[in-house]
Amino acid sequence: MTVHNRKAPADSRDEILPFVARHNGPGPEDVRTMLAAIGVPSVDTLISQTLPEAIRFDGTLDLPPAADEHDALAELRAKIEENVEARSFIGQGYYGCRVPAVIQRNLFENPAWYTAYTPYQPEISQGRLEMLFNFQTLVSELTGLPVANASLLDEATAVAEAAGMAYRHHRMKRHTISVHNRLHPQSRTVLETRMAPLDIKVKDGDPDEDTAAVVFSWPDTLGGFEDPAEVVKKAKDAGALVIVVTDPLALTLLQPPGEWGADIVVGSAQRFGVPMGFGGPHAAYIGVAESLTRIMPGRLVGQSVDAKGNPAYRLALQTREQHIRRDKATSNICTAQALLANMAAAYAIWHGSEGLRAIATRVSQYADRFAGSLKAGGYTIANDRFFDTLAIGVNGTAHDLEKKARAAGYLIRVIDEDTVGVSFDETASDQDFTELCTIFGVSEDPAGGKTHLPAGLRTSPFLTQGVFHSIRSETDMMRYLRVLADKDLALDRAMIPLGSCTMKLNAAAELAPVSWRKIGNIHPFAPAEHVTGYRKMVSELEDWLCQITGFAAVSLQPNAGSQGEFAGLTAIRRYHESRGEGHRDVCLIPSSAHGTNPASASMSGLRIVVVKCTDGGDVDLEDLKAKASENSANLAALMITYPSTHGVFEQKIKDICDMVHQHGGQVYFDGANLNAMVGLSRPFEIGADVCHMNLHKTFCIPHGGGGPGIGPIGVSEHLKPFLPGNPLEDGSGAVAAAAFGSASILPISWMYIRMMGADGLKAASEMAILSANYLAARLGKAFDILYRGDNGRVAHECIIDTRPFKETANVNVEDIAKRLIDYGFHAPTMSWPVAGTLMVEPTESEPLAELDRFCDAMIAIHAEIMRIEHGEWSTDDNPLVNAPHTAEMAIAGKWTHGYDTMLAVAPGGAAQLTSKYWPPVARVDNVYGDRNLVCTCPPIEQLAS
Amino acid sequence: MTVHNRKAPADSRDEILPFVARHNGPGPEDVRTMLAAIGVPSVDTLISQTLPEAIRFDGTLDLPPAADEHDALAELRAKIEENVEARSFIGQGYYGCRVPAVIQRNLFENPAWYTAYTPYQPEISQGRLEMLFNFQTLVSELTGLPVANASLLDEATAVAEAAGMAYRHHRMKRHTISVHNRLHPQSRTVLETRMAPLDIKVKDGDPDEDTAAVVFSWPDTLGGFEDPAEVVKKAKDAGALVIVVTDPLALTLLQPPGEWGADIVVGSAQRFGVPMGFGGPHAAYIGVAESLTRIMPGRLVGQSVDAKGNPAYRLALQTREQHIRRDKATSNICTAQALLANMAAAYAIWHGSEGLRAIATRVSQYADRFAGSLKAGGYTIANDRFFDTLAIGVNGTAHDLEKKARAAGYLIRVIDEDTVGVSFDETASDQDFTELCTIFGVSEDPAGGKTHLPAGLRTSPFLTQGVFHSIRSETDMMRYLRVLADKDLALDRAMIPLGSCTMKLNAAAELAPVSWRKIGNIHPFAPAEHVTGYRKMVSELEDWLCQITGFAAVSLQPNAGSQGEFAGLTAIRRYHESRGEGHRDVCLIPSSAHGTNPASASMSGLRIVVVKCTDGGDVDLEDLKAKASENSANLAALMITYPSTHGVFEQKIKDICDMVHQHGGQVYFDGANLNAMVGLSRPFEIGADVCHMNLHKTFCIPHGGGGPGIGPIGVSEHLKPFLPGNPLEDGSGAVAAAAFGSASILPISWMYIRMMGADGLKAASEMAILSANYLAARLGKAFDILYRGDNGRVAHECIIDTRPFKETANVNVEDIAKRLIDYGFHAPTMSWPVAGTLMVEPTESEPLAELDRFCDAMIAIHAEIMRIEHGEWSTDDNPLVNAPHTAEMAIAGKWTHGYDTMLAVAPGGAAQLTSKYWPPVARVDNVYGDRNLVCTCPPIEQLAS
Repeated sequence: MTVHNRKAPADSRDEILPFVARHNGPGPEDVRTMLAAIGVPSVDTLISQTLPEAIRFDGTLDLPPAADEHDALAELRAKIEENVEARSFIGQGYYGCRVPAVIQRNLFENPAWYTAYTPYQPEISQGRLEMLFNFQTLVSELTGLPVANASLLDEATAVAEAAGMAYRHHRMKRHTISVHNRLHPQSRTVLETRMAPLDIKVKDGDPDEDTAAVVFSWPDTLGGFEDPAEVVKKAKDAGALVIVVTDPLALTLLQPPGEWGADIVVGSAQRFGVPMGFGGPHAAYIGVAESLTRIMPGRLVGQSVDAKGNPAYRLALQTREQHIRRDKATSNICTAQALLANMAAAYAIWHGSEGLRAIATRVSQYADRFAGSLKAGGYTIANDRFFDTLAIGVNGTAHDLEKKARAAGYLIRVIDEDTVGVSFDETASDQDFTELCTIFGVSEDPAGGKTHLPAGLRTSPFLTQGVFHSIRSETDMMRYLRVLADKDLALDRAMIPLGSCTMKLNAAAELAPVSWRKIGNIHPFAPAEHVTGYRKMVSELEDWLCQITGFAAVSLQPNAGSQGEFAGLTAIRRYHESRGEGHRDVCLIPSSAHGTNPASASMSGLRIVVVKCTDGGDVDLEDLKAKASENSANLAALMITYPSTHGVFEQKIKDICDMVHQHGGQVYFDGANLNAMVGLSRPFEIGADVCHMNLHKTFCIPHGGGGPGIGPIGVSEHLKPFLPGNPLEDGSGAVAAAAFGSASILPISWMYIRMMGADGLKAASEMAILSANYLAARLGKAFDILYRGDNGRVAHECIIDTRPFKETANVNVEDIAKRLIDYGFHAPTMSWPVAGTLMVEPTESEPLAELDRFCDAMIAIHAEIMRIEHGEWSTDDNPLVNAPHTAEMAIAGKWTHGYDTMLAVAPGGAAQLTSKYWPPVARVDNVYGDRNLVCTCPPIEQLAS
Repeated sequence: MTVHNRKAPADSRDEILPFVARHNGPGPEDVRTMLAAIGVPSVDTLISQTLPEAIRFDGTLDLPPAADEHDALAELRAKIEENVEARSFIGQGYYGCRVPAVIQRNLFENPAWYTAYTPYQPEISQGRLEMLFNFQTLVSELTGLPVANASLLDEATAVAEAAGMAYRHHRMKRHTISVHNRLHPQSRTVLETRMAPLDIKVKDGDPDEDTAAVVFSWPDTLGGFEDPAEVVKKAKDAGALVIVVTDPLALTLLQPPGEWGADIVVGSAQRFGVPMGFGGPHAAYIGVAESLTRIMPGRLVGQSVDAKGNPAYRLALQTREQHIRRDKATSNICTAQALLANMAAAYAIWHGSEGLRAIATRVSQYADRFAGSLKAGGYTIANDRFFDTLAIGVNGTAHDLEKKARAAGYLIRVIDEDTVGVSFDETASDQDFTELCTIFGVSEDPAGGKTHLPAGLRTSPFLTQGVFHSIRSETDMMRYLRVLADKDLALDRAMIPLGSCTMKLNAAAELAPVSWRKIGNIHPFAPAEHVTGYRKMVSELEDWLCQITGFAAVSLQPNAGSQGEFAGLTAIRRYHESRGEGHRDVCLIPSSAHGTNPASASMSGLRIVVVKCTDGGDVDLEDLKAKASENSANLAALMITYPSTHGVFEQKIKDICDMVHQHGGQVYFDGANLNAMVGLSRPFEIGADVCHMNLHKTFCIPHGGGGPGIGPIGVSEHLKPFLPGNPLEDGSGAVAAAAFGSASILPISWMYIRMMGADGLKAASEMAILSANYLAARLGKAFDILYRGDNGRVAHECIIDTRPFKETANVNVEDIAKRLIDYGFHAPTMSWPVAGTLMVEPTESEPLAELDRFCDAMIAIHAEIMRIEHGEWSTDDNPLVNAPHTAEMAIAGKWTHGYDTMLAVAPGGAAQLTSKYWPPVARVDNVYGDRNLVCTCPPIEQLAS
């Protein structure tokens, strides 16, 4: 936290500050200080020393002039007001729900929750780790499977991820996924898109010896529940895995699939208290059999112990993950939906099993009553067994009925001309029931309906764990959410200097629209006339992102960077195919690339050829030339991050792009570092054919403690036909269940661009570069800065070399990272892209005082290392190796260390103690946790025994 | 914080919990545990042992059935949507403004800020004390006066408070307030209401030797700025104080009144970032000359030092305040507008002097341009000198123009048939300017207008203090608000067991509507057709409160309990006058009454006669009989709190009421303890003629760290004509500037009642009584519980006697209160109503686990006292006398105390440390602070010297 006792700048002038001055941390006087420290006369000079002249964008982005937060909100509100908030009974994977107000306010709208980063540093992440652990427990209990992860992106991609697991489980030797019954169409589309590059056929019908898995919808998209016994038997007989796609609310009443043979269960937790939001974001879930744990995609929270033997959570089994496995990965998912998973977990805690069952019962009784009414009125219902969804025979009048319903303010699903679907949800009321009866022209069934739930109701108790039944009062829930938030260090308390992850300001005005009803309460398959507001916002945002990147078109469908990569590579693959060059399957990837790049390429069916880097961190042009020539006939693409993962604007980037194009390849830009370029340089003009952007890095969507994110792609004109299609329409190349992916958080990026304007965006990029160079200048006096450009400048991040201290003081990079916690900081990115280093990205949003506090901390840590080097402290007892220090360590028992407690917990000085962040656990033992994997909370009965 | 590892109750059933189960802390199983501890078989039995049969309400309140949070919100939204959000240029003390989104989200909508209590316990209140100190500094800097308080209620009551100060300053010997020029009419009305009972004449014209003060509006209500020199001279010559009523935004450009002779400056800080909200709440401010400090009403934050010599804030000079001065008080104000004052301070921090000046300049330039346009179009403007407001001559067409404007979506002020007012504010835009020109049929002045600001612009710099110019980025502001919030202990972290103050749940759904635009952006003097939604909500809430109290009518105008008392006593006084019994001026008040009662009576011109209490804490019936008889001819009223301030339902309350009535007096119920009665007993049926309710105690409006509150009164049929009038209409008896006082927070109480329903409200009262008796049962084993009813039961609070420990262990009540902080609790009410005791009110909202945590802490403290008694610890070095223990005390330097550090800071056990509330300061030295009064932050230049 900044100190607020400065003198006013001498030259301040009367001014209502524009948003850019709120978004950027340093003020004009700070900039002068920073320039002086770097030793450059002006920001322009710095930028010209940093960014190669050849790629400099000298125009002005054609964006609307910057609006202040109130005007921008008013403008967006006027658009969004055009949306029509109808009563949706469409179902099809998206349901109305009631977000408990206490969760809405204290979690969803609370920066302590939504500005947190992915919990890679467990000591400062115990709060959200605990809630994600609750989520995993919830999924495990509902599905009846022992292992669940901390969320996937959406139900459609979850089905694809499960299929990919089955493929890997069978050592990539079985090439068929057998879809037993009707999936939601959007899931089927995405499954096919995802399987195609792997040459896996998705077909209907019974499994055979080439079948990796049977996908079984329970219920199917028409709401029916088939008896699973035979399906499971056939699958097992064929040696295929059983993947069950299901509904979490139904599972509160029905026998869990894990009890009747499912190996993998997936679905969406949306209806557990997350608004529909025109399609996303919501947490998808996956539960798996124990034997499949190590090939399960995504993040897994496990319980371990800390250095003092106290229980502590942390991400488990990270070696499974794509960023480690690179081209061996079978999933590329990184960012998931942590914030939404946490909301779903909180919703389950709030209601408990008895409340969830009551909600499910109410929903199913409405379906029962409506079925009774319809049957009495002469309609036929497709299924004898259903939970919340009726597929109703309507004899060619489906569209008329839909229109009639719409006129009354109701949305129903047209399945085909002869069938409509009606799904009940938590929000259904007696009034709705009456209206629906009127729409269908039937009398309300006085009998009240008999149950149509499938045989085999749930007999096993669930959610018996303490947390799921102790919190019923709002006071308790509010405090639980606060206690968890307080355990975590998020952007609302301190800088999170993560290289490549761009933890910038998530402004309150950007977040505000996400809470609007006409953003949240819109079904993704609502009719076009109901979503004109959404469409306008989407279309403007697409245009603006085109401006910013120089591309001809942008797709907002990919709901994470990983999905953007897949969508972009798919577009390239389809482009080659369209030209009869479907054989082009080689993807060049520099050795410095983030592991997701090879993972995505692999998932896209591309063969990866690694290109070397020079000692300076740049792509080795000679090697590139050689590899491109060697693979010329089959060259599909180069994937490259720019500025590089080493934080440098490579001078020869245009040459690199040219070289790839000469060999018929396409250039894929990884936009992870776009934050250094906006307004200064445009990927298209540099030579990229496609580029994904991370709206959660560059365009202010908060990280949510590990998601949501959005990874749109921009493409050149020739790739436009190959952008992801609408998963409900032609569908080709669709990568998410909804046309605009995580539509409900797009307002965040819309607001950001609208408030910044062209000049503001450019100023932010300049400030990001200035701040990074300021850090490099200050920290360069104590540490070696790896990789600088030709003029000695870094881009928007810099890499601090901590490797020498291993030898001199037995201090490793982790010791420094954990010691930063004692100083009140989240650690920078550790050991990436270079093992043993720290990568620091300050972003433009950190105030100078906070940058200085960070530099002071790093320099102080350096001095601590010197004391170890000088033998003042032993290598096995010093403030680094013991870091982080908890309050318990400092206070309980006898202090036996060779340094004093104040140095341990308040190295920033006594004043730090008045508002110190105290880590709730000491250093977490990862090895112990992986050896003793616990990833769900055992039932309380089990705890007692 | 509760522990979440319980087993599920065996008998839980599937149920979607109603709101009452969320509002009440204990669940069904908890209730059984509590009953067993008390030793009663059922809640009904407990209530019948507690509440006298004679006053039991056995019916069911006629309220709508309980709605869940979503349905209640939908119902209220439908109403409020009827309000029309027009562009207001009415001015007259209320202006559109732009609430910075970062403040809206992180302060206004953050329970850490709004659920905090009045900062009487400074060690756990440093955050809000610092922000209130900032507010005082802001007021001091703007007004040019050295001392400012931490807010008053609204501008109108602030004028009255200032006049009261002048009266007291002149030792109550001068009986005239001279109003020099036109005040806003609502202020004039309230001033007259407030002066009437004191026999002070409010007159226009020059001061004379009977004039206590000259009230000078600068600007006046027409927007004009008279040269103050002559006004000040005349006042000084007459020996009168100069009270200036002014606009804080204008003061950013103009010479501060303190520099040209003002003794007192008052106004409203509404336009500093607080929505209009149909009239309130907003913080009024007062700045005074140093010599007037000790007679200034309200709360004053001062800087002092803590036990370790570190700077610390706390409420200063409390001996000035009404609750100490009782009938000698000249103000009765307690609850002020802390939350809104904090918002205004945050707004000033956000913009700084240069931003505020820029806003003011923009506003004044619009006024200039519009004046130019009007003049060119042939209109006359009333004043040569103005800031934001034009009084425009319109020759008999005022109403037509107003209608025309309204049709275009604009509101202007009709001053009289020949004059309209147009006030510009921060939200004014060029589009507004064009529209206004069209409405008035004039061309836009191309010249851009010349300035019409008065001569004598501000030359002195202001807001040079670090906090006002260091925080410009949103990141910094977000973190500053978090750091301050983290220093405080509010309801979002722990029980606040304050006797008489009812710190119950403030549910998120109750608070949500307060953020709605059609609640916030409504001018209090908007036309009736624009506020039908507000009117419907108000009317329902009035009806419901009538139901709950049994009265014939309710007025929601009083914007604090103190104002309710004044309004109620004024109604009684006016009733007697109407019957020709204006001589009735004796008010009986039991000795146990809260100090506000005599203060209010005194302000209402009543003579106070104190009635004794018995040793059991009840009113001494014999003494009452004697006093009533003695004063029979002149008996105006009895003021009585029920259940009593001792936390007991007195058996004889009906007899007491009868006795007063027999002597022609009226019974005034202080509703502070209404939380024990709702649904169980009704004041009217007991015999009250008037009763005020504290919506911020009983009806869930949060305390806001010292306000806002609302203190409506209910009255019997015969008092209806004497309810406060609309301050703009007949105005008789108006006690606040707006007809419905703090209208924008009424939705909180509306939602509460709507969600609870009759049964829920009753269940809450029962739970409050059950919880208090549970505490009495558990704590009674360690402490003496003072005052129980005939059956040994307390009402909804209980008094713990700590006096014996002074003798046995030299431990006083403060030591226990401060020691509770180490255990993670806010202290109960200290030394009231009985010196040396703690009064505990658990409310219905605290979960049993939290009640137990509190009992465990108190019992542990008792054991600590025993160790002192037994000589194990010395009386001058033990965990109580040194409490609270800061982190610095535990960690820095050498620990020299005779007990260990863990006992000091984690008496709840090591687990406490993982989420401990750490007090940022040690025990605060009140005496030092009062001796060295510092109540504004000195300019930074001064700090340096």
